[in-house]
Amino acid sequence: MNSSNSESKTDAIVFIGDKPFMNYVTAVVVQFTEKGESEVTIKARGKFISRAVDVAEVSRRRFLEKENIDVKDIQIGSEEFQREGKTTNISNIAITLVRK
Amino acid sequence: MNSSNSESKTDAIVFIGDKPFMNYVTAVVVQFTEKGESEVTIKARGKFISRAVDVAEVSRRRFLEKENIDVKDIQIGSEEFQREGKTTNISNIAITLVRK
Repeated sequence: MNSSNSESKTDAIVFIGDKPFMNYVTAVVVQFTEKGESEVTIKARGKFISRAVDVAEVSRRRFLEKENIDVKDIQIGSEEFQREGKTTNISNIAITLVRK
Repeated sequence: MNSSNSESKTDAIVFIGDKPFMNYVTAVVVQFTEKGESEVTIKARGKFISRAVDVAEVSRRRFLEKENIDVKDIQIGSEEFQREGKTTNISNIAITLVRK
């Protein structure tokens, strides 16, 4: 289920950043309702992880009630990067929503 | 797997708040290394969700490498509450780590 194969099949990805909250909710909702996607993955890093969970919950519970959207899978991980000569880690999350 | 039954079996729960980051990492690590728990659940709400993911990742990758700890399950949800006469929703997360 979590192989890189299954991940590469997911076309619809919404990356969470610091734009207005509803932009991301709308992006997720449109993928299901207008683009006809059966799966949408919401991705975020660092402090935006909390926001990714909010986007998933608000999309699913408030705007996609009739679409029967479920949480298929949630992955967490870390990425290492160099900043000012120091190695820093940043956590990430990927929440995959699926049409039941 | 996600029934309320299996959840009630999890004794070790670490709630993430605004104490120093390493307090939470230590709490998780001690559950596995000293208390001999086979499962620890990290819970957080709202803005502390990002922190919960950081605690899970740092505990697992930096301090529990030899313990073979895996992410067993991640649940997200929402709670409704009343604040100043208005209904507000807050998201939550529960990350369950397990000894392989």
